[in-house]
Amino acid sequence: MQLLDDKYFMQIALKEAEKALEIGEVPVGVVIVCNQQIVAKAHNLTQTLNDVTAHAEMQAITSAANSLGSKYLKDCTMYVTLEPCQMCAGASYWAQIGRIVFAADDEKRGYRALGTMIHPKTIVTTGVFTDKASDILLEFFQQKRLK
Amino acid sequence: MQLLDDKYFMQIALKEAEKALEIGEVPVGVVIVCNQQIVAKAHNLTQTLNDVTAHAEMQAITSAANSLGSKYLKDCTMYVTLEPCQMCAGASYWAQIGRIVFAADDEKRGYRALGTMIHPKTIVTTGVFTDKASDILLEFFQQKRLK
Repeated sequence: MQLLDDKYFMQIALKEAEKALEIGEVPVGVVIVCNQQIVAKAHNLTQTLNDVTAHAEMQAITSAANSLGSKYLKDCTMYVTLEPCQMCAGASYWAQIGRIVFAADDEKRGYRALGTMIHPKTIVTTGVFTDKASDILLEFFQQKRLK
Repeated sequence: MQLLDDKYFMQIALKEAEKALEIGEVPVGVVIVCNQQIVAKAHNLTQTLNDVTAHAEMQAITSAANSLGSKYLKDCTMYVTLEPCQMCAGASYWAQIGRIVFAADDEKRGYRALGTMIHPKTIVTTGVFTDKASDILLEFFQQKRLK
């Protein structure tokens, strides 16, 4: 059996981001994986749900906990197309998530620039499909400017 | 007409915290107020819902947006019995909440100690019923230790 790698799962997260783009949401997608199984998928729905807390990561953390029957996600990896914000990094802290892999950097509102504390046991990997994720975000903001 | 003050609304938030205590949740309560009207009330439900994102503030922000039909809560005050964490302060940033009033300090995991950025227009008031809120939290942790 071939192990599925970060690129495989990030591509699915990118598909989630594209779903958000299609409905006029800031295009961010997330997949949460546990033992090579996808336990949650989500895309940003803040406009649709009229709710600032409806970031893709927040929905996926709730959904993964529901799927696994545990609110702690120590053995899970969260693949997210954009660097998490303070709120989402804060949620990942409480979930004690095992690993976060993200694609595009968010130099302004990303958790690193803002110094948000992630859980000491969370491993972070960056740079997986960064350009592709950035392109989707750029497409969204360009579309928005033209409207 | 007499204007209702911070103590009035914090007492209602404390009642929410007591509801959490009764069901074995970390006792934190929230009330969100807009133009002297309560638009959302919530208490922590992380154990009950098996969801780390179910902090009282998160639920109340979602509920207030739903109640007002606006995801921005610029004219609202959030009364919370414990200093918000990174996640909840991060959510209040996105909601651009007008004011946060909190009772007990959280020196370890509160947003101030962790340097979380709140919205530049959010006004923060502390010290309203600090002892009462701390007593409820202390009661919870003492009960837990005895079990």
